[in-house]
Amino acid sequence: METREKLPKMSTAQIIDSEQLLNHWQGHRSLTRRLIDLYPEDKLFTFSLGGMRPFGGLVKELLAIAGPGIQGLATNEWKELDEDLASLDSKEKLLEAWDRTTAEIDTWWPRIPVERFQERITAFGQYEDTGYCTLLYFVDNEIHHRGQAYVYLRELGIAPPNFWER
Amino acid sequence: METREKLPKMSTAQIIDSEQLLNHWQGHRSLTRRLIDLYPEDKLFTFSLGGMRPFGGLVKELLAIAGPGIQGLATNEWKELDEDLASLDSKEKLLEAWDRTTAEIDTWWPRIPVERFQERITAFGQYEDTGYCTLLYFVDNEIHHRGQAYVYLRELGIAPPNFWER
Repeated sequence: METREKLPKMSTAQIIDSEQLLNHWQGHRSLTRRLIDLYPEDKLFTFSLGGMRPFGGLVKELLAIAGPGIQGLATNEWKELDEDLASLDSKEKLLEAWDRTTAEIDTWWPRIPVERFQERITAFGQYEDTGYCTLLYFVDNEIHHRGQAYVYLRELGIAPPNFWER
Repeated sequence: METREKLPKMSTAQIIDSEQLLNHWQGHRSLTRRLIDLYPEDKLFTFSLGGMRPFGGLVKELLAIAGPGIQGLATNEWKELDEDLASLDSKEKLLEAWDRTTAEIDTWWPRIPVERFQERITAFGQYEDTGYCTLLYFVDNEIHHRGQAYVYLRELGIAPPNFWER
């Protein structure tokens, strides 16, 4: 295994500001939206590889996290995660929910106290971590599942958008 | 398409500091290392889905970016990207190169002037962006390709490590 030495305490100067982090997340969400839009409707809830969830199920997870997650970060009041979202049973409904969530994120984001990012929080009443780690988890989890969807799309013979187009 | 209103200028207080961002990246790299280690040697450079690159090729891309990328961020001197790395033709060599890069990142990271993250830079002499976007691109690109590798592994009948284990 790799070993890493403990580093001396480094500068705390600004790396990324709140609006930049918001735009980073929304940029990723905009790319994911294009994958949903491009995905063949009849495969959305059925096609899978390696026994993994179909893309529609992954999108539901992302929706279950993002909207309630941004409200939780803003208010520090958390409800349990509900990934079922059974009513979102078509591409149109997924896209509508996606766009509602995009607006929710824009609305709630400025209400996150900046100190929250360095506080310990318990997201969804069960995932304890620092605020910035929680937010980065939301983003990284989306990139991860979207990476899966790139493979699904290629296997379905469809060229996905370039990863760097946000 | 979704539309988003322009937001008012928000606080510039600290969201994530330099050491936290380093640990975030190295945490992801540690997970990717486990996937390389777990991957069947005889499939590393041959198995693919949907016409995409085998995992070994993706790992070479990540290595081509990370080591030269951290030196570029620290010095702002950039060489052209070389993703070929033909000599890395076994799992052992990939893991050795991975661990060398881990140490390089730890060595070079504290030499990145914090202002660099908010400067416009031209990574590898061709990708112009703000410093923090360039660094996040390195991390996100790794998560994206590792997401592909999760599907490859599942198709090969191997359970990958949990995404949240860093």
